[in-house]
Amino acid sequence: MSDVNVKVPGFLANGISVGIKGDGKKDLALINSVVPARAVGVFTTNRFKAAPVVLDMERIQRGRAQAIVVNSGNANASTGKQGYEDAVVMSRAIADGLSISEELVLVASTGIIGEKLPVEKIIGGAGDLIGGLSADGIPVAEESIMTTDQFPKIAWRKCLIGGREITVCGIAKGAGMIEPNMATMLSFIMTDASIDYNYMNRVFRQSVDKSFHAITVDGCMSTNDTVIMLANGVAGNISLKGRSSGAVVFRNALDQVMIDLAKEIVRDGEGATKIIHIIVDEARSRKDAQKIAYCIANSNLVKTAFYGEDPNWGRIIAAVGSAGIAVSPDSVRLFLNDLPLFRGGIGVREGREQLAKIMKNDNIQVRVKLGMGKQSFQLFASDLTHEYVTINAHYHT
Amino acid sequence: MSDVNVKVPGFLANGISVGIKGDGKKDLALINSVVPARAVGVFTTNRFKAAPVVLDMERIQRGRAQAIVVNSGNANASTGKQGYEDAVVMSRAIADGLSISEELVLVASTGIIGEKLPVEKIIGGAGDLIGGLSADGIPVAEESIMTTDQFPKIAWRKCLIGGREITVCGIAKGAGMIEPNMATMLSFIMTDASIDYNYMNRVFRQSVDKSFHAITVDGCMSTNDTVIMLANGVAGNISLKGRSSGAVVFRNALDQVMIDLAKEIVRDGEGATKIIHIIVDEARSRKDAQKIAYCIANSNLVKTAFYGEDPNWGRIIAAVGSAGIAVSPDSVRLFLNDLPLFRGGIGVREGREQLAKIMKNDNIQVRVKLGMGKQSFQLFASDLTHEYVTINAHYHT
Repeated sequence: MSDVNVKVPGFLANGISVGIKGDGKKDLALINSVVPARAVGVFTTNRFKAAPVVLDMERIQRGRAQAIVVNSGNANASTGKQGYEDAVVMSRAIADGLSISEELVLVASTGIIGEKLPVEKIIGGAGDLIGGLSADGIPVAEESIMTTDQFPKIAWRKCLIGGREITVCGIAKGAGMIEPNMATMLSFIMTDASIDYNYMNRVFRQSVDKSFHAITVDGCMSTNDTVIMLANGVAGNISLKGRSSGAVVFRNALDQVMIDLAKEIVRDGEGATKIIHIIVDEARSRKDAQKIAYCIANSNLVKTAFYGEDPNWGRIIAAVGSAGIAVSPDSVRLFLNDLPLFRGGIGVREGREQLAKIMKNDNIQVRVKLGMGKQSFQLFASDLTHEYVTINAHYHT
Repeated sequence: MSDVNVKVPGFLANGISVGIKGDGKKDLALINSVVPARAVGVFTTNRFKAAPVVLDMERIQRGRAQAIVVNSGNANASTGKQGYEDAVVMSRAIADGLSISEELVLVASTGIIGEKLPVEKIIGGAGDLIGGLSADGIPVAEESIMTTDQFPKIAWRKCLIGGREITVCGIAKGAGMIEPNMATMLSFIMTDASIDYNYMNRVFRQSVDKSFHAITVDGCMSTNDTVIMLANGVAGNISLKGRSSGAVVFRNALDQVMIDLAKEIVRDGEGATKIIHIIVDEARSRKDAQKIAYCIANSNLVKTAFYGEDPNWGRIIAAVGSAGIAVSPDSVRLFLNDLPLFRGGIGVREGREQLAKIMKNDNIQVRVKLGMGKQSFQLFASDLTHEYVTINAHYHT
């Protein structure tokens, strides 16, 4: 669910333009908890980590943060030592304005890489950014982190835990690449729940695995990918732990918010016309299932076939067979929206008319049953279109 | 070098139309050595191997073959037990006509998958196919194995070994996918050299590693990929071995023929407008270098940037960093046609005009130096274009 009026108790936000993008669009966002919050994060595993990612990975180890400042229009990546210093200066401008410790400020950037961050613009705008902080500011913060996103991505759930209303809300920007030169995804999750740190870290990572780690637009990994969650505890519930009665309710809410955002990122994938939900069942291990699911999802032949609405199951089967997993052709079965396409080593003849209809849907489910074990993995992928090529070929640095 | 008049002593070839393709184009080829030849092969590692691949892998273990029969228009893949029987029947039709043992006939197929091979058409055409065998038949055999190839691919070298002239000649079909529904590459190498079996097997595999295993169009692996080499010994040279004086000369000729063919396949890649020669140097192991080279080559962001002639080095750096190899950003250097683009963790400012010029070339060299060791890997890749999407999306089964 997205709602322009969403608020999370104890969280303020804002977004303004300070001229980094150069087209007058908003490009600087701030999320601020009224009290220091527990903080956990997941960051890109790319070896060329952007400066803000390096800084956040150091700071978040303390498990606490009170503000996240995010600029769009410049990724502060491949910027060397200067870039790291700029990220520190950016955090200091916010810390000073909020009168909190610099260590409690996290930083994120998205945009063009290899260009120096115009940190003086950020310092110059810090006063206005902080002055405009408001409980209603989440949508404007979201607007300010967008790059080539076609639409804003906000998701939230409210739930009752021990008689207290708890809100979980997230914002995200997706895999747009024109301005930043690469796919970067950023997401920031806010909740007023009181939650045990170890439990929070665990459920957060599990939710990321089910959502942001289970999507692909083009299989490319950015230098800036960042997901951060802040929990400020102002709801005053008894702190959530693994065995508490509210833990399941909270986990479900968190899963739903993150999966909503992840699906929105795929739906807004560059040039995407379809969301393909790929499920690999009956694998020996989750890792095997994951490897096969990504092989299907990142096959350009599979992706173009979905774009062309061509029920070309041979390409899916070839992708399954190329994953390096010792599948047995005779036991693999393939289904599109539950319609069997392949089993016993050969294609299924029946249902070709139904298949042509399925291919016209915007959302299509691909299910592969391997017949090897009991483990599964699922992910969401986009198709590969002329528009993707246009967006990514015809941007000149 | 390609030449329509190329002959290989002791080899006959032919190609005809038997109506598998349905458009009257040639679709059945035969290569025949006048005496049983030593035979080695490399086949797809896809788990869904087509029937002819399964059959060849059994037969080639004996190390001898005298004929290769190839049809285009139908891949005989995902066709179950019936497909295997059809491949055997296809080989038997040729063996009977040539009065040789069935075991000496290898089979290859390329075309649509999941459809029964029209084996009766092949049986019906076997007489004409054999009747028309000729020393001049290599080009017409090549023509008959093409699917969506834009041009024929024939390469040859002649060399003098111990006073005898030796010919090495290969034909190939490339990664065309409209008719076959997937990228399939086939290549058949003929030589009149006399060569020790173990030595032949070793140099053949080494040449494949440098050529067909070092190219990528879209990172997809077919169910039918096949490279077979026949050496019939009619040149009468002293059998080539690892330490013989002619061995180096022969290896060079073989390398050159296979690399020529591999580059032609990339140049004819679906929709390709550029060949990108990717070299990864200073890796700890060849495997690391290979992993990074393929990460660059198969990044849709890198491929579209080359198509758009956009000197977007950030995408290459991001691909290097995403390969799962522990590279150090500070020691990685990136060059395009020897122009430095990235070093010391940041982009190089100079030479942007020169860079824009380089991007307009049809052949571009990308060199990454990792600063970690002494191992290298290189490959040839194509760009990702609107035409690729058109070809692969707009074919309906």
